[in-house]
Amino acid sequence: MSGMSGVTMQKTKPIITVMTDFGTEDGYVGAMKGVLLGLLPDAAVVDISHRIEPFNIRQAAFSLLNYAFYYPDNTVHLVVVDPGVGTERKAVIIRTANQYFVGPDNGVFSFIYQQEAFQAYAIRESAFGQEVSSTFHGRDIFAPAAARIFLEKRLESFSEPVTSLVSFYETFRKKSDGEFALQILHVDHYGNLILNFTRRDWIKLNRPKDLKLQLNRGFLYGIHDTFGEAREGQILALWDSRGFLQIARNQGNAATTLDLNVGDQIILRLS
Amino acid sequence: MSGMSGVTMQKTKPIITVMTDFGTEDGYVGAMKGVLLGLLPDAAVVDISHRIEPFNIRQAAFSLLNYAFYYPDNTVHLVVVDPGVGTERKAVIIRTANQYFVGPDNGVFSFIYQQEAFQAYAIRESAFGQEVSSTFHGRDIFAPAAARIFLEKRLESFSEPVTSLVSFYETFRKKSDGEFALQILHVDHYGNLILNFTRRDWIKLNRPKDLKLQLNRGFLYGIHDTFGEAREGQILALWDSRGFLQIARNQGNAATTLDLNVGDQIILRLS
Amino acid sequence: MSGMSGVTMQKTKPIITVMTDFGTEDGYVGAMKGVLLGLLPDAAVVDISHRIEPFNIRQAAFSLLNYAFYYPDNTVHLVVVDPGVGTERKAVIIRTANQYFVGPDNGVFSFIYQQEAFQAYAIRESAFGQEVSSTFHGRDIFAPAAARIFLEKRLESFSEPVTSLVSFYETFRKKSDGEFALQILHVDHYGNLILNFTRRDWIKLNRPKDLKLQLNRGFLYGIHDTFGEAREGQILALWDSRGFLQIARNQGNAATTLDLNVGDQIILRLS
Repeated sequence: MSGMSGVTMQKTKPIITVMTDFGTEDGYVGAMKGVLLGLLPDAAVVDISHRIEPFNIRQAAFSLLNYAFYYPDNTVHLVVVDPGVGTERKAVIIRTANQYFVGPDNGVFSFIYQQEAFQAYAIRESAFGQEVSSTFHGRDIFAPAAARIFLEKRLESFSEPVTSLVSFYETFRKKSDGEFALQILHVDHYGNLILNFTRRDWIKLNRPKDLKLQLNRGFLYGIHDTFGEAREGQILALWDSRGFLQIARNQGNAATTLDLNVGDQIILRLS
Repeated sequence: MSGMSGVTMQKTKPIITVMTDFGTEDGYVGAMKGVLLGLLPDAAVVDISHRIEPFNIRQAAFSLLNYAFYYPDNTVHLVVVDPGVGTERKAVIIRTANQYFVGPDNGVFSFIYQQEAFQAYAIRESAFGQEVSSTFHGRDIFAPAAARIFLEKRLESFSEPVTSLVSFYETFRKKSDGEFALQILHVDHYGNLILNFTRRDWIKLNRPKDLKLQLNRGFLYGIHDTFGEAREGQILALWDSRGFLQIARNQGNAATTLDLNVGDQIILRLS
Repeated sequence: MSGMSGVTMQKTKPIITVMTDFGTEDGYVGAMKGVLLGLLPDAAVVDISHRIEPFNIRQAAFSLLNYAFYYPDNTVHLVVVDPGVGTERKAVIIRTANQYFVGPDNGVFSFIYQQEAFQAYAIRESAFGQEVSSTFHGRDIFAPAAARIFLEKRLESFSEPVTSLVSFYETFRKKSDGEFALQILHVDHYGNLILNFTRRDWIKLNRPKDLKLQLNRGFLYGIHDTFGEAREGQILALWDSRGFLQIARNQGNAATTLDLNVGDQIILRLS
């Protein structure tokens, strides 16, 4: 692998994951995978999703956190949700201790910045030739850049260090003693509502047992350990598999039942 | 490969297929594939579908039959449609003559039990460490168990033989001489209705030619060999590619046209 | 690789892309990938899309153009959108300078014929044994044929040259001096409208700057280079990443905003 540390290239099979909001039916993702296999014939190109809601940077940012750190060292994660393609927004490479990330600098890596130490590089478009379209950087810049992480000795051969980056992560707000304003970060496939409050935050508050979340129609008391403790259809609060607090409906859809969505506020009370 | 027969590990590339009801957009499937590649860097990880209707065990069970036996020997088929995650439901490995299956014991392997001889093993959760979440066994138990089938000499190192298993398969019922109550097992992507009556069942009845299926608005006469025999829009009965009787609409959707769904009864009459 | 040129088989890993209208949830695509891996265990089997609208040959034909030529030499592109399965329609292999295409002869390769020199072969069904179903040629003929392109010395061992092929491509029509009737070829995932007028066509007309496209509610003036030149929500004409003229709405959906669809006519005026 390349990069500032001067480590020599790895011998194992390159792994590149791909997440986009392109859908698959136009063949655009197919083009990106062709470019990757043309440059790295032995790579494992792993589809994550191409059904991110069009232009929904927040959804992609959260989903990325769900998978990125389960991959072997030196995996490259390509994320192309890019409403600003063709504008001045930067194209970036983010390097954490074990992983690489490639995509537009529009906040899609917000959660990575919040959770890991990292170095950031701005990709030089001019390093990718004359054939760059203004509408499809996924194929013409991001995919070749992902491949070049494996092919070149130094990231600096096609990028330069950058420090100012776009991020949208906001931590929960303390309203008064024992009262906090949380926000819904993400609604997942099952309608579970993920909040900006983690198990680590809860530990910092000395693991309060007597807490409640305020909903339109009453309160949710306590934090459960598993869906199995709840009746079918019951709404409950529990930790998700990454340690975020979530509101879920056992075998049902909490988002539609409660009519809540990304950005909505939820009050947490200790008592 | 591991297992009771004491066969030594295979030299060919491991193949693991993955079917879930997770959707792709949250990155949960991405996490499972990361775990698989971390343990088996050379594996071919094959996406089957992540769009099984949430919690629809029957749909997954039927779809599994459509692909599993077309894979090379010693393929591992991972199926995670798991509404009971976090409850006492078992996690199992099913071993047929040539294939392995890994998933929850909730009926998702019903069709496999019905069609093939098999041995079953219950996975010991304790063999998968302290990090097991109560909400995401796909990542924390099923994916690592699938990999360990290739990595360990014996399935017994992380599972034990089990005999009592959940199954929902029901054969068709004889109502009177020449009258049978069939059931719709599955509605496929094209709206074809798959029935619990196979070509083998038909052969056991001495291949009757004069048969009819009773619909709301009349009868379907005979069993056709191909869609090509029908006019556009015509409804007909024919054998599907696995030998099940299906009701289909040529270049259209039989399920919506006839307003029929999984579980509905269809009467078959010989005359 | 096989074929008329007598070139010996390649040593690199075979790449086979797969595009269908099957959806994934029934396991039919899973079966095709099993057949491919059974015949070519080292192949990279690349999913393009399985969400082509059922029976929409035109959509598949256009999408194919978006990815096929970005793949390494000797990639085989399998396309199974096949409303005529079980009828007399031919199964074909198309060979261009660098790529192979396998699928039904129903127009799905229309754009390939229009853009590249090619040789065509009709697949002999009888070369694929007795087990061929009449409803699922994807699994029983097209997938094994794709694998046999890599496995056999000559395409003629299971196919024969053919010249008459189905195509639906129509070029734009000249209505009068400076007035042309274009047609919408394709509506993509973002609602962009792709027209049968290319940058090459525009160059042949001497690169006119003063042109306008007539819409229901007025005109679009000029051809833009990038989305970045437009306000959010603005409708504009620009070149897509393959050089086709498209009508797009910046960060929105042009098809629904303008209520236009595939086949609709758009007038282009030079002035």
